[in-house]
Amino acid sequence: MGDPCGIGPEIIVRALASASLKRAANYLILGNQEVLDRTIKSLKIPLHYKTISDDSSIEDITSPLSLLSTEYFTPALIKKRGPTKEGGALSFLWIEKGIHLALQGKINALVTAPISKEAIHMAGHNYPGHTEILCDLSRVKRVVMLMVGGTLRVAFVTTHIALKEIPHSITVKNVLETITISNDYLKKYFNIKNPRIAVCGVNPHAGEEGIFGNEEEKIIAPAVKKARNLVITCDGPVSADTVFYKALKGTYDLVVSMYHDQGAIPLKLHAFEIGVNITLGIPFIRTSPDHGTAYDIAGKGIANPESMKEAIKMAIMMAQGGKKVLK
Amino acid sequence: MGDPCGIGPEIIVRALASASLKRAANYLILGNQEVLDRTIKSLKIPLHYKTISDDSSIEDITSPLSLLSTEYFTPALIKKRGPTKEGGALSFLWIEKGIHLALQGKINALVTAPISKEAIHMAGHNYPGHTEILCDLSRVKRVVMLMVGGTLRVAFVTTHIALKEIPHSITVKNVLETITISNDYLKKYFNIKNPRIAVCGVNPHAGEEGIFGNEEEKIIAPAVKKARNLVITCDGPVSADTVFYKALKGTYDLVVSMYHDQGAIPLKLHAFEIGVNITLGIPFIRTSPDHGTAYDIAGKGIANPESMKEAIKMAIMMAQGGKKVLK
Repeated sequence: MGDPCGIGPEIIVRALASASLKRAANYLILGNQEVLDRTIKSLKIPLHYKTISDDSSIEDITSPLSLLSTEYFTPALIKKRGPTKEGGALSFLWIEKGIHLALQGKINALVTAPISKEAIHMAGHNYPGHTEILCDLSRVKRVVMLMVGGTLRVAFVTTHIALKEIPHSITVKNVLETITISNDYLKKYFNIKNPRIAVCGVNPHAGEEGIFGNEEEKIIAPAVKKARNLVITCDGPVSADTVFYKALKGTYDLVVSMYHDQGAIPLKLHAFEIGVNITLGIPFIRTSPDHGTAYDIAGKGIANPESMKEAIKMAIMMAQGGKKVLK
Repeated sequence: MGDPCGIGPEIIVRALASASLKRAANYLILGNQEVLDRTIKSLKIPLHYKTISDDSSIEDITSPLSLLSTEYFTPALIKKRGPTKEGGALSFLWIEKGIHLALQGKINALVTAPISKEAIHMAGHNYPGHTEILCDLSRVKRVVMLMVGGTLRVAFVTTHIALKEIPHSITVKNVLETITISNDYLKKYFNIKNPRIAVCGVNPHAGEEGIFGNEEEKIIAPAVKKARNLVITCDGPVSADTVFYKALKGTYDLVVSMYHDQGAIPLKLHAFEIGVNITLGIPFIRTSPDHGTAYDIAGKGIANPESMKEAIKMAIMMAQGGKKVLK
């Protein structure tokens, strides 16, 4: 459910009530009943669900929509529409529960709604975001962020760091891991037998043979060579200003981007407000919408559920091994 | 004409013979007659032109298409399809001539075809590209590169430099100059009375209040503030991953990009192969297609003239003060 004071509850209700998702899977909401009921009522959307009392009942879920309601939530808090200690504590608890259920194989995929870093901190959990919680509780060291927008798929070598930190944050090891992990996922979850991957340079025109920077020659080219030795089909370093166009035209199944804006700019231009984040490298499927808690518009019933709908569709598609795509 | 061994001659012939440009202006080609005749012949495109012998005849140009043919070109060289000393010398000579004619007001705008840096160097002219030649011969210190692709206009604070050079290449002075020069041009040549300009951050999410880098706070925000004090309508620092979408939706007339890929990625995604470069800050109008000499396909008659056509249309539009747009 994400932060109960953010837009999470309303985009979940809207998404699950939508015609395309209504009966596409059996859904389990990890959240709070009070919050869910208030959201359903205020949106005037008929959404029927079964409550289940504890984890043991999860095994027999046959209902299209269930709620595992944990903890009591002070109704007055929902009107705060900002980061709260209680909201942070609850959203953390629900993620933790989701990760455990996924690790136990009790759910096929986990979709997370937006949380607030500030609220999580107020509740005493010192994580910068979902990714680090997922890494920590799944006990994995290296995850890769994959963003999907429309037909464009972009995996990131680095994410939320200052531009000046980028050159020394790119190593042969993490470029190679981004390629291999992405390649594995495309095969396993996207039903692509021989993925074609493009690896961006970091400098203009991929350095133009060393004239504008040498990261291409020193780091990216050796990583691509190693990937090819592993029989992965990949091109690179390629010029970032043309590769996304080529990917959209069908030349590549995925682009490996060296830094946040390099990949996020074309993704948001191509598929604004329908982007999906996927965490690669953890032992279960996890997707999320590509936006935050949006406290400023929470509770007004105007939040756009499209990115959440796409995140749920993606989770279902991946859980089916990429064999079925929902419209 | 650009480098006579590149695709310049053929894209010029195709562009000027196109229905939309045929009689849209009186054109003067600065190039070589031998090369032009061979190109016309091999493309089998009927293109009639008048030759003029020297600069003094330029004042009375009433013919839709004229050629000022300078120097003899060894026909065998054209088959080289690579950088040559002679090709470099001629392309430099034609640019030089174009700049002088523009500075003297004998032409209303200058459109340049692609040149080869290597060929220019072989001919003893030590310039990295058009921009530096334009600066030098026009005796100006600061120019701004504006790229236009479809309805997207992007001005650059830095251009062809390594990513690691970006943070210390951005100063309050050059961000501010990019804003003010762009603002002046939009008013004067694009007929936009009160241009709305967005200024990108350099870090992800424009630094997210200093969490990922401080260039926004130290450099970009003060430059935007100074621009506003000059009564320029501008927003910034804005997050680069959403601003291009907003610009395309009509929120902004121009985006100021901090570095090459930040602006070139969305431009090429939105308007592949029809981009136009415009040099702002010199005392005349200068546009060019957004591609190189393409030696590998030169002479085959397959080069796409669309970017050259757009560059010529843009020059005509600007020369008319932005009041008329060709289809």
